[in-house]
Amino acid sequence: MNTLVLTRNDLSVIVQAFGRDALMDEVLAQLRIALREYDPSRTQSLRRQGFVYEKPRLGVLEWMPVMRVSRQVVIKVVAYNPGNPDDVGLPTIVSTISVYDPATGHLVALLDGILLTALRTGAASAVATQILARPGSSIVGIIGCGAQAVTQLHALSRVMQIQEVLFFDTDPSAVASFPRRTAFLGLSMKSAPPNVVARASDVLCTATSVEVGKGPVFEDSDLKPWIHVNAVGSDLPGKIEVPLSLLKRSLVCPDFLEQALIEGESQQLDASEVGPSLSDLVKRQQDFEAYRSRPTVFDSTGYALEDMVATEIVLKHARALGLGRELAIENILADPRNPYGPLDVQASRPAQDRALP
Amino acid sequence: MNTLVLTRNDLSVIVQAFGRDALMDEVLAQLRIALREYDPSRTQSLRRQGFVYEKPRLGVLEWMPVMRVSRQVVIKVVAYNPGNPDDVGLPTIVSTISVYDPATGHLVALLDGILLTALRTGAASAVATQILARPGSSIVGIIGCGAQAVTQLHALSRVMQIQEVLFFDTDPSAVASFPRRTAFLGLSMKSAPPNVVARASDVLCTATSVEVGKGPVFEDSDLKPWIHVNAVGSDLPGKIEVPLSLLKRSLVCPDFLEQALIEGESQQLDASEVGPSLSDLVKRQQDFEAYRSRPTVFDSTGYALEDMVATEIVLKHARALGLGRELAIENILADPRNPYGPLDVQASRPAQDRALP
Repeated sequence: MNTLVLTRNDLSVIVQAFGRDALMDEVLAQLRIALREYDPSRTQSLRRQGFVYEKPRLGVLEWMPVMRVSRQVVIKVVAYNPGNPDDVGLPTIVSTISVYDPATGHLVALLDGILLTALRTGAASAVATQILARPGSSIVGIIGCGAQAVTQLHALSRVMQIQEVLFFDTDPSAVASFPRRTAFLGLSMKSAPPNVVARASDVLCTATSVEVGKGPVFEDSDLKPWIHVNAVGSDLPGKIEVPLSLLKRSLVCPDFLEQALIEGESQQLDASEVGPSLSDLVKRQQDFEAYRSRPTVFDSTGYALEDMVATEIVLKHARALGLGRELAIENILADPRNPYGPLDVQASRPAQDRALP
Repeated sequence: MNTLVLTRNDLSVIVQAFGRDALMDEVLAQLRIALREYDPSRTQSLRRQGFVYEKPRLGVLEWMPVMRVSRQVVIKVVAYNPGNPDDVGLPTIVSTISVYDPATGHLVALLDGILLTALRTGAASAVATQILARPGSSIVGIIGCGAQAVTQLHALSRVMQIQEVLFFDTDPSAVASFPRRTAFLGLSMKSAPPNVVARASDVLCTATSVEVGKGPVFEDSDLKPWIHVNAVGSDLPGKIEVPLSLLKRSLVCPDFLEQALIEGESQQLDASEVGPSLSDLVKRQQDFEAYRSRPTVFDSTGYALEDMVATEIVLKHARALGLGRELAIENILADPRNPYGPLDVQASRPAQDRALP
């Protein structure tokens, strides 16, 4: 009963072996299938829960569990600490993913959740964009140029022909480095103030660490009538990126309604004002074609099903390439009813051996 | 940013280096301190949640999170699968424990939860027994002779002088092997029917996998007036071990009230009928001395605080002995805003490179 532990280097081998485009395409394709085939009687997803704290800085550490009945449980533990990049040089989102066998409880695998979160969050936006954006959309706006923005742009580039990217971040260093971080896409990049970005956008991705109470991050003014927004940076109750007036006149599609109503853009709405889920969109794509010429918002809070898809892909490649380490972590011994195992060295003990060490 | 991964062998080295008595004594001592100093503003514990499933067999996979504010988050993931020992030769309880740094989200350590669960569950019963059992108690009853029974008896042997142990299990092979599995304690052991066990007991531990709806596991008939029960095998709503009439006339002390009301013996009671928590018992020990001559029940559902105590001890010893492997699991790269890192090999791509692999 071993646990397959993938290191960061294993992940890097996979990305280099397959190429990030092929990997993103595979996440996109498998995510579409998972959303189309989603059946709550076979896949149970729970709203994430966690600890919110204010010291040493505002942050949240959450767990996102999902079970494919009779097959596996995937739990992503993810922390959101907006101070990470500047304070300690770490990503805003730090995460690991564990896979369990529900039939026994065994930890099957442990791997990174940082790259996988970025991949699947990008892929989810691309799936929504492909269904809801106006055909011929070519100008992409990015508000918030952190790690998630890289894979937003990458994933969009796999499903649309991008002519120009306009981008904004409150942090000048993130603005300065964004073209370099996305140079592999070969796109025309231009920085601009947030409302200029929003007005120019056929497709707009917001992926910010805006503070609770400080949103929205752009104004609902002179936007294109067909604008599609992927609102990615929703992580906390009270944190919003999209103006309420735009939400009110848009088709708003959450990834996971129960969660979006608490921490997504949908928290600004009544449940009755929220549209179909991403899964419904994929299942009944043709029913929503009329919305391509109207404003639409994908309310992306991050969904455990997406993590499971990315995890399955990376583990499949790791196994095919013989990557990772097999470690026997659980104290599973010959006799399942004897937690100490055969510790014959200490088969008897003197009565005075009761002092604390 | 490495993760310390302890293997089963590392754990075995620790147990052999310190001896199981010293290890149990340390868990006991540190648990008492943690319970006495427990302050909900500094230590946040959440009721466990999880997935219940009936295929391939009835089981539950749960997560038990606890946070020491500003210091660490410990999450134990634990599955309870009563079919494990006979069906697949695994313990009923299979578990792993992860430690996170809330300031960053980094996974600090990963280790076994099977032995640690057994150690801390035994220690918790011993803490309760020391406060609530009649002085001079010497006859211990054990109903349910699986893995937890070994550490129940071990922990009790550290806090009381045991003259005789009577034990019962519905599984003859568990009965047959129990004396061998506890031989290191050097106690006088005798198997008996459950009601004989219960009637003889000064201290009775129930640690069964009784099915939902099939409890209690002994009758409230001719019990000693000062009986102290450690009801350990409570894991599921509807699963009970202790007769309601005994609970009604006993001081019932839960480890974690909120959880005990849902899945412990306390689910048979109204919240107003439940007594002080284990933490309150330890804090105000002298207030409960009168109950030593009356029936008392420790309603042990398993408490994340106990896991944190055992985890801290094992990690401390592992570090002192230089055990475990330091693995870089998270995709933490030089630029926290670039999830792909410097993949220069793929700095540009041909436009046709869009096929799935």
